[in-house]
Amino acid sequence: MRIAELSRHTGVPVPTIKYYLREGLLPAGELTSPNQARYDDRHVQRLRLVRVLLDVGRLPIATIRQLLSALDEPDPDVHRVLGTALPTAVSGKDSLDPDGVEAARVRIDKLVQERAWLVGRETTARQGAAEALAAFEQVGADVGMLLEQYADVAETIAGHDLDFVGRAPDAEGMLYHAVVGSILGDALLAALRRMAQEHESAKKFGIRGDDC
Amino acid sequence: MRIAELSRHTGVPVPTIKYYLREGLLPAGELTSPNQARYDDRHVQRLRLVRVLLDVGRLPIATIRQLLSALDEPDPDVHRVLGTALPTAVSGKDSLDPDGVEAARVRIDKLVQERAWLVGRETTARQGAAEALAAFEQVGADVGMLLEQYADVAETIAGHDLDFVGRAPDAEGMLYHAVVGSILGDALLAALRRMAQEHESAKKFGIRGDDC
Repeated sequence: MRIAELSRHTGVPVPTIKYYLREGLLPAGELTSPNQARYDDRHVQRLRLVRVLLDVGRLPIATIRQLLSALDEPDPDVHRVLGTALPTAVSGKDSLDPDGVEAARVRIDKLVQERAWLVGRETTARQGAAEALAAFEQVGADVGMLLEQYADVAETIAGHDLDFVGRAPDAEGMLYHAVVGSILGDALLAALRRMAQEHESAKKFGIRGDDC
Repeated sequence: MRIAELSRHTGVPVPTIKYYLREGLLPAGELTSPNQARYDDRHVQRLRLVRVLLDVGRLPIATIRQLLSALDEPDPDVHRVLGTALPTAVSGKDSLDPDGVEAARVRIDKLVQERAWLVGRETTARQGAAEALAAFEQVGADVGMLLEQYADVAETIAGHDLDFVGRAPDAEGMLYHAVVGSILGDALLAALRRMAQEHESAKKFGIRGDDC
């Protein structure tokens, strides 16, 4: 199909598609003349993925480019992508006190060690967790008990996530599931958590069901 | 203290503080002359909160203004804030197919009903969950089993979250914990989930500890 058809098919405007092509988020089409290219179903799928990672995952362009290049590698390495390529919600936040982040990082490293988690020292999530923890403390919230409870819950979720990855038919599909599940899973989990909080709060503060 | 001192104390530049004052994110100081105002510790704390909600929570200014006004109400209503004022990661995403979102919303409403969750129909998280679910399906990932597993986990997390809220000494503190815990908790949980995924993946794919 031509670019106009790709646009109709996906609802993405032509200038936006051209922007993604320039930014390397979409592979070039097959040239049929010096000024025209042909696109196929892989472009449709890739375009849908890019839109969702941008819009629901709220990832920066550079991060998406990095994830897509991992997806396109001839020898998919699910473990490497899960360990290093996936961004966390937080990174390099300049509103945080560096000493507070450093102290929080020591606590996160201790948590990893105590739980014998096989997590590389360069995993960006270590720093992300330290920054989130430092943010709690910077606004005066004591989060000690919550940290261990969340770590327990994270183990459960990760078990489900790896099962989800394992349900893909091949290595390429597993990598795809790892990326999609990690990024979109954050959004799904956050929304379900919010609903469950409202429910727990209704129980705690005695709101009746028909008030909802 | 004067605005320059407030800036030194918090590390936030004076023009940024003035911007927050104009945007209503920081209450005005007490005027000591037509051109000078005095600020106190409450301004320091509020400024720290605003920075963290912007930077770690990645919330839009308008949402932060809404949350802060809930915090400043004379009669704090934790349940209302948990139910309606807190944003979810996803909302109003134009990259999603409206029919897909509508179908996903029916599934989310069914899940709420089956679990007898006391969740208002207007709770934004219902739509946020529907959008996240639709995003999964739009990129071709079958998320049926994951949805129920995540809902189980969300119940556990919400129980911990409400315990965290309940550890605050008064109603004002509980509301503060609800806001801070919900927003920063998403970031902390996402980072811990990412680490636990790497650990599960290391176990599944047989990576040894000393490779980490």
